[in-house]
Amino acid sequence: MTSFDAAIFSTHSSIKSGELDIAGVLATQLAADYGTPLFVVDESDFKARAKGWNNALNSAFGVSDGMVYYAAKSFVCKEIARWVSETGIGLDVCTGGEMAVAIAAGFPMDRVELHGNNKSEKEIRTAIEVGIGTIVVDSFHEIERVSRIAAELGKVQKVYIRVTPGVEAHTHEFISTAHEDVKFGFSIASGAAWTAIQEIRKSSSLNLAGLHSHIGSQIFASEGFAAAAVKVIAVLAKYRDAFGSELPELDLGGGYGIAYIPGEITLDPTVVMSELAAVVKRECAAAKIAVPKISIEPGRAIVGPTTTTLYTVGTTKDVALDNGATRRYVAVDGGMSDNIRPALYGAEYLAIIANRSSTATQINCRVVGKHCESGDIIIREIQLAQDLVPGDLLAIPATGAYGRSMASNYNHLTRPAVIAVKDGKARLIVRRETETDLLALEL
Amino acid sequence: MTSFDAAIFSTHSSIKSGELDIAGVLATQLAADYGTPLFVVDESDFKARAKGWNNALNSAFGVSDGMVYYAAKSFVCKEIARWVSETGIGLDVCTGGEMAVAIAAGFPMDRVELHGNNKSEKEIRTAIEVGIGTIVVDSFHEIERVSRIAAELGKVQKVYIRVTPGVEAHTHEFISTAHEDVKFGFSIASGAAWTAIQEIRKSSSLNLAGLHSHIGSQIFASEGFAAAAVKVIAVLAKYRDAFGSELPELDLGGGYGIAYIPGEITLDPTVVMSELAAVVKRECAAAKIAVPKISIEPGRAIVGPTTTTLYTVGTTKDVALDNGATRRYVAVDGGMSDNIRPALYGAEYLAIIANRSSTATQINCRVVGKHCESGDIIIREIQLAQDLVPGDLLAIPATGAYGRSMASNYNHLTRPAVIAVKDGKARLIVRRETETDLLALEL
Repeated sequence: MTSFDAAIFSTHSSIKSGELDIAGVLATQLAADYGTPLFVVDESDFKARAKGWNNALNSAFGVSDGMVYYAAKSFVCKEIARWVSETGIGLDVCTGGEMAVAIAAGFPMDRVELHGNNKSEKEIRTAIEVGIGTIVVDSFHEIERVSRIAAELGKVQKVYIRVTPGVEAHTHEFISTAHEDVKFGFSIASGAAWTAIQEIRKSSSLNLAGLHSHIGSQIFASEGFAAAAVKVIAVLAKYRDAFGSELPELDLGGGYGIAYIPGEITLDPTVVMSELAAVVKRECAAAKIAVPKISIEPGRAIVGPTTTTLYTVGTTKDVALDNGATRRYVAVDGGMSDNIRPALYGAEYLAIIANRSSTATQINCRVVGKHCESGDIIIREIQLAQDLVPGDLLAIPATGAYGRSMASNYNHLTRPAVIAVKDGKARLIVRRETETDLLALEL
Repeated sequence: MTSFDAAIFSTHSSIKSGELDIAGVLATQLAADYGTPLFVVDESDFKARAKGWNNALNSAFGVSDGMVYYAAKSFVCKEIARWVSETGIGLDVCTGGEMAVAIAAGFPMDRVELHGNNKSEKEIRTAIEVGIGTIVVDSFHEIERVSRIAAELGKVQKVYIRVTPGVEAHTHEFISTAHEDVKFGFSIASGAAWTAIQEIRKSSSLNLAGLHSHIGSQIFASEGFAAAAVKVIAVLAKYRDAFGSELPELDLGGGYGIAYIPGEITLDPTVVMSELAAVVKRECAAAKIAVPKISIEPGRAIVGPTTTTLYTVGTTKDVALDNGATRRYVAVDGGMSDNIRPALYGAEYLAIIANRSSTATQINCRVVGKHCESGDIIIREIQLAQDLVPGDLLAIPATGAYGRSMASNYNHLTRPAVIAVKDGKARLIVRRETETDLLALEL
């Protein structure tokens, strides 16, 4: 039976007299005040998760300077950047656009890390000019570019090298491979990573502070992180042997998994970090190197669980299936333009009726959007109350990551607003687009 | 071997002294003047294809009033709407946003058809107020809404009923089914379509002018269109038997296929329309009804082939594969934010070097974007010249449909400009987004 699930909704969500309440504001009130579709972020939950990863990292490694990078790509706006800044963690950006948000929010640039397999010269120049903390270099072309531009600007830029350790992590398993067939990083196995180290050491405008390894996204297989750590620490030992000094920092990436549907779990930072610390400490001890300053990138694990999408049901339609069963299509006022993940990745979600309780029998439903495309499906199979009618509100939890951030204007739908809720108060942090906005680029 | 392919590039594209020329303007000039990534539309090609479908439809049916609807969802902006208007064909819109473009462009609203499985009351009201030609009703809820709102506005609204004929069309085959498991339309088999006819006939503010059937997208299987036409004409005959009059119009949809990669073909309107006309005439004759006024929706077949995306190569990287082979990753300055189709549908594309000729050996490459995601792949497997270097321009043809229209700001990339080229002249029709635009919605 489909019902509210506290393990999936944001921490301060609950059912009050049959209605969904998020941080003290009823979903019906949010819909009335701001319209739907609407992204609702539980602000205190966001900050608690950011601090939770930071505390877990520092506590597991027994340090105070471990660095958690928030993934701007999962969802960023100026207000989110201010929250990230306030919690003391770092920000991982991939483009000039994401950097522009950080700059506009007054984010401390020394806590920003610049990723990307194809950074433009302009992006590299801006990053160095604004004093970005770390550039994670990803190709030989980029080593030359960062070195040259830093020299032109009279700066020494701290860099990490992104290495591919030969670990393919999938949701619940990992595969150890000789080579990784991905666009990112320098292969350890092929020797490319070692050549990159040598190239960077030749440049007087680059300061190689460490390595970076990232094995994937929405990952629960802790063995994958451990396997990658083992391979990367072997490179650190080789570095010490070759150059007589140790690289002081190590970014072990992340992409930690969260719960989307009942039965799934959101990884506990304390557990994940203590497992990771055990492996890192063991391997560093075996290699006789000091444990470097560790950074992690929890990815969707910070913002993902904090956000709920509210939709209004517009139409319902019963379709007979070839097996004799009936499927009710429940169409909402958004769709693949505000949540492409089901169509793109086959991602699954939960939905509940947010405006009232229902004791009606639950029936086989499919939640779809309003786009002119058969593949515009948000939830392929879900049981929902038979008395669901147009005008009811549906709430879909765990939509904080890669919802608004990947949103499009497909079919010229205007992208939803984003609301922060905290202690019974709601406020706009990204306003809803208008049809006028959509025409603003046209000539 | 990968090379320029006149069957895939827009009609006025060619290679001049080794460089790609589109309608008299060199790709290098376009990139220099407007930057990359860039969508380049061959204006005369667009208008010729629009007229080509119109002429083929009228000629095949021996009429002058057949209606071709251009799919706004494939790509629309004010200038495109003006071209559609100028060629005399109609416009198919699905949302208030698409309607807003038509209104802003001064498009004749009587040639507009409103689709959608979940039109809002506001969209329905606007449509009726501005005198939209046809509303294609899609659910019982909507019959009530359109009827009520038209009555409130003192109008009689022309409507079609979208029916699902029990034909699932795939690219090169079709399947006849009892039931269609889709969100669109009223099932003929279940009786829902017939009930909808009866409901609409009861309303004095609705004028049921015909039926609408659409079996899919990017379709080459002409038997699928024929099979659907047979089933829909059977309903027309039943209507005549029941009510003693004939429905005067019939929209047979479309979604006609185009060529994306070498070996594929773009359907010839003359052939498709003459095949369709033969079936429709035969079935109408057998049912002893007059051939209704026919509408079609070619979908991507008008804009798709007219547009080429230009990208600049930023980095290249060789990755060893487990089978001993090497793959060169060629990273460009766009990616899944301007072309989601490879990631979303597994769509395939061609790419050529646009700024020079090369006689170098061609090697196994993968064209990827600059997003922070391993799945950000534009072309999974392609042979490209070994001497391809950063700074080279890549041209990807057949990107007119569902490229810019589904574009996102993922990773805060700004969406590309769209340029129209004609007779050696280029002009901006949609300007490139800026980082300032991206921040405009934020508080």
